Amino acid sequence: MNANPKFMSATATVDEAAIQPLPNSRKTYVQGSRADIRVPMREVSQADTPASFGFEANPPVYIYDTSGPYTDPEAQIDIRSGLAATPRMPWILEREDTEELDGPTSVYGKARLADPALEELRFDLHRKPRRAREGKNVTQMHYARQGIVTPEMEYVAIRENLRRKEYIESLKTSGPTGQRLAEMMGRQHPGQAYGASIPAEITPEFVRDEIARGRAIIPANINHPEVEPMIIGRNFLVKINANIGNSAVTSSIGEEVEKMTWSIRWGGDTVMDLSTGKHIHETREWIIRNSPVPIGTVPIYQALEKVNGKAEDLTWEIFRDTLIEQAEQGVDYFTIHAGVLLRYVPLTAKRMTGIVSRGGSILAKWCLAHHKENFLYTHFEDICQIMKAYDVSFSLGDGLRPGSIYDANDEAQLGELKTLGELTQIAWKHDVQVMIEGPGHVPMQLIKENMDLQLEQCHEAPFYTLGPLTTDIAPGYDHITSGIGAAQIGWYGTAMLCYVTPKEHLGLPDKNDVKDGIITYKIAAHAADLAKGHPGAQIRDNALSKARFEFRWEDQFNLGLDPDKARSFHDETLPKDSAKVAHFCSMCGPHFCSMKITQEVRKYAEDGMQVKAVEFIKNGAELYSKA
Amino acid sequence: MNANPKFMSATATVDEAAIQPLPNSRKTYVQGSRADIRVPMREVSQADTPASFGFEANPPVYIYDTSGPYTDPEAQIDIRSGLAATPRMPWILEREDTEELDGPTSVYGKARLADPALEELRFDLHRKPRRAREGKNVTQMHYARQGIVTPEMEYVAIRENLRRKEYIESLKTSGPTGQRLAEMMGRQHPGQAYGASIPAEITPEFVRDEIARGRAIIPANINHPEVEPMIIGRNFLVKINANIGNSAVTSSIGEEVEKMTWSIRWGGDTVMDLSTGKHIHETREWIIRNSPVPIGTVPIYQALEKVNGKAEDLTWEIFRDTLIEQAEQGVDYFTIHAGVLLRYVPLTAKRMTGIVSRGGSILAKWCLAHHKENFLYTHFEDICQIMKAYDVSFSLGDGLRPGSIYDANDEAQLGELKTLGELTQIAWKHDVQVMIEGPGHVPMQLIKENMDLQLEQCHEAPFYTLGPLTTDIAPGYDHITSGIGAAQIGWYGTAMLCYVTPKEHLGLPDKNDVKDGIITYKIAAHAADLAKGHPGAQIRDNALSKARFEFRWEDQFNLGLDPDKARSFHDETLPKDSAKVAHFCSMCGPHFCSMKITQEVRKYAEDGMQVKAVEFIKNGAELYSKA
Repeated sequence: MNANPKFMSATATVDEAAIQPLPNSRKTYVQGSRADIRVPMREVSQADTPASFGFEANPPVYIYDTSGPYTDPEAQIDIRSGLAATPRMPWILEREDTEELDGPTSVYGKARLADPALEELRFDLHRKPRRAREGKNVTQMHYARQGIVTPEMEYVAIRENLRRKEYIESLKTSGPTGQRLAEMMGRQHPGQAYGASIPAEITPEFVRDEIARGRAIIPANINHPEVEPMIIGRNFLVKINANIGNSAVTSSIGEEVEKMTWSIRWGGDTVMDLSTGKHIHETREWIIRNSPVPIGTVPIYQALEKVNGKAEDLTWEIFRDTLIEQAEQGVDYFTIHAGVLLRYVPLTAKRMTGIVSRGGSILAKWCLAHHKENFLYTHFEDICQIMKAYDVSFSLGDGLRPGSIYDANDEAQLGELKTLGELTQIAWKHDVQVMIEGPGHVPMQLIKENMDLQLEQCHEAPFYTLGPLTTDIAPGYDHITSGIGAAQIGWYGTAMLCYVTPKEHLGLPDKNDVKDGIITYKIAAHAADLAKGHPGAQIRDNALSKARFEFRWEDQFNLGLDPDKARSFHDETLPKDSAKVAHFCSMCGPHFCSMKITQEVRKYAEDGMQVKAVEFIKNGAELYSKA
Repeated sequence: MNANPKFMSATATVDEAAIQPLPNSRKTYVQGSRADIRVPMREVSQADTPASFGFEANPPVYIYDTSGPYTDPEAQIDIRSGLAATPRMPWILEREDTEELDGPTSVYGKARLADPALEELRFDLHRKPRRAREGKNVTQMHYARQGIVTPEMEYVAIRENLRRKEYIESLKTSGPTGQRLAEMMGRQHPGQAYGASIPAEITPEFVRDEIARGRAIIPANINHPEVEPMIIGRNFLVKINANIGNSAVTSSIGEEVEKMTWSIRWGGDTVMDLSTGKHIHETREWIIRNSPVPIGTVPIYQALEKVNGKAEDLTWEIFRDTLIEQAEQGVDYFTIHAGVLLRYVPLTAKRMTGIVSRGGSILAKWCLAHHKENFLYTHFEDICQIMKAYDVSFSLGDGLRPGSIYDANDEAQLGELKTLGELTQIAWKHDVQVMIEGPGHVPMQLIKENMDLQLEQCHEAPFYTLGPLTTDIAPGYDHITSGIGAAQIGWYGTAMLCYVTPKEHLGLPDKNDVKDGIITYKIAAHAADLAKGHPGAQIRDNALSKARFEFRWEDQFNLGLDPDKARSFHDETLPKDSAKVAHFCSMCGPHFCSMKITQEVRKYAEDGMQVKAVEFIKNGAELYSKA
């Protein structure tokens, strides 16, 4: 049940499976305007087109790379030391608006550090936390509104562009067919972007402008210098989040760190640590220190553990201390359920499935027990003060999201959404970055209403949805019921999709579930990018399709989201190396491969039938112009 | 590689896994207007609501059941004898418009029967084929247009209604909360049906009318009396098809029969036998004789095998003989690629992936080789003559469907679609039932155009699409890339979704892949039914959500599409029986289960807080009205 029940810091090791480079892939860094802006990408090299198809060189394709130093063979990985504080530490320091603290300032953070019983599993912290200097605001939104383009902003601009221009240029000079090839591989269907306005090329100034107006965020706590900056917004690539974290029933620190490294290997853009079990504080430290992606949390979970699970015993003081504790560890965004107002709670009474957000139900209980307004709402500006001292972004939680198709788009949900819109404006007053969480369980015909209302009521702050699940009838497959909804809501404008794993509703996901969730959501996010017409999104599809048509099996595997699985599926029936260049697979066999026959059709025409064909057919002159 | 390499008819046995009843499920038959109309449904019984939630009885839910007699403990299953010829044989005979033949009339059918070498693997046929009597037309469309409501039509009407009315009635009388419960469980969000017009209750007359106007088909060859009739049309439940069949590289007769019984167990509404390997004729006989669902084929595959894989050697005579051979075995629908016209072939030359339909590429090759028009097109009326003599439905093949995102919605594809519309009208002139095949690979923003054009150009004949895949970047997960597209196109009006398995593009699917494909497509089809607002579609979601909220774990598993997987996922971390009534699972543990906390919230209010709450809140009077 528990692979690593006795996690000990002294013997902690990285998951070996997480540090293998992906096949035919090379980690490359694109340098920005200064030497310390080095943006990672995965370069996937390809074989040449075989002579039988007319020789062509196929330049490498660049893939957005969330895996951090783990897949860089040059990097020294030791999870006991954590990742290097570059990339971001120099940028944070040179802004001179933060100060190093003597140590954690939260009561709880100090207590944990002083507890000798935790020694054996504690991450050996070698750096003190920082905080904004008195009167300073250190959020990316604040800088953006001052007109400052930070290194973080330039970094994400380079990252979003994915060397698309360079790829197309490399095609042009790749050989005699280069010009045609460049046109072909860069071709893309016009999108339907539903009001998003994505420029052909992302500039640092565009990034700044989007952040300044609140339409995008860069979650990047000053105490998480290990992060490789990324951006969440409707006019950027659709991102995905992976939820990990233990529960009281199962899992250990070691397993959770492995889930994080496994998530980012397969494409997780951010990771939420939703631990509710033992050693929440220590688990989080291990995750953050080893994570190159932003980490989100739901602080109310830990606050509840501090009062032994009794919601009614929660206080603002305990919660506030928890926020500071986590902000000083480096959490990049907090889910704050400040929209669960007392007056909305009764609206959930007639629901099929009540309140299904853990945070939402905790706060509802607190509100009813005290017959008082939600203390996250009444203390919202106090929370903003903390957020801007560390640059923690809000993820305004949808504590009243529907937990069933039946409850979709009801009064409770939509009431809370409106409140989240009001809170967004308060946060923005403090220059604090905000995204808005969304459902949940929604049948397809009601999905777009969620997006439209969110855009309108939350002033275009990025939307961050959980699925939504489009039906409730498939426990065990909710990655798929929700992947369908995620693709659609991503298309309509959601900036980040929170994955759902096959274990949803049934148990805590393990590493396999994490991967299934990630791959499903990478599919949904990419399908959304294509549908929006995100510039260059089709390059990878085109490259993979060309490899497929030319029977470059290895390239087909390697350009896919999961080369390992594609290869193993192929090899189940045709394991020999010779099959990797064969002009068929086991699905159709040699006589029935349509792609092979199509090649024969083209060949046929070239070998003498062309003249007759041209007589007969319209557009004949263009026929078989490839070779 | 091959689990059953030496398939012998004498020792053939049914897959034991396929004949176990599903948990807490009972096969029930709803009788129609006559004793021999007995429509199968799966009745899933549920536990009562536990007292802590306020006791309630939860009447059984009825689920559409495609599994045939296999899941009926009363049925004697012996695949060597095949299924009983009831349900349909009496109906076919009493119409007195068919005659029994002396034996197969096709040249090939006779030759196979006479070949002693096939004795050991041949299905022991105990019935002679039938054909329409001279001058008779035996299609369901022909009867419908004569105003005749056949038993098949009444059968599908009962089947589509799924005892919804009876279920709601049973709720009303289930106890003191019955009225409220009936209203709740029958509640459903209004749909967006995009022009579909689905009545609240399906009547036999409605079925007749839809078939008469060509908007729905009942694929039911007179030589497949074993079939349990089902209907495919935009105003009925969305159906799914499973492709099975061997290839020259792998699989045996035994494995393919197992894939069929496995497909229907999990919800396959029809099955296509796409065998292209050895013993195509004999494999098909085994499948049809044991299949309660309609079987489709692509006759050109077998015709190609008859000319040793040389497309240019195909002739109308060989093809015609193949149609008769298969029609006399009982194939219910034929994919006919009659729209692959010579003039469209050059339009594929500039594609990324050429022609990806196996049938399409074969015919393109034939056209170019002979510089002649596609013989399926020139002989289309001859084909209609055969179809109406056995009631084989057309599935007009999209031989030029796109094989990549790049090629989506191009001139070749849309040109062919127009031709399929013309052919539809020719088929209808002969009262032959028609559905239209569709793509393929289409990015989300271009999916609706496919549906709109199909409705317009093919005069509302049912659309039957393969996916479509919404991105090309995930080989190994194309059930998901395509499930996303399938849900959408089903919502827009596609009547049947052809599944794609995880092995697509990589190899021949095995039994596990078949199940993954089926479940994914059941999700897509059901999500589409919900989005269209199909009356009563939400009943199963509501029932499962209620079970989930009330911690009736077994009911949650059993109401889902795959009870086995849901249970095994749950039991990975909490295997004990006591956990099946626990008010949490391993995902959140006991303190963090939002559903549990919601229960506590409701309880809280009941136990004295109610008065204060009511003072404060709007709608307070309705709060906690449940208990």
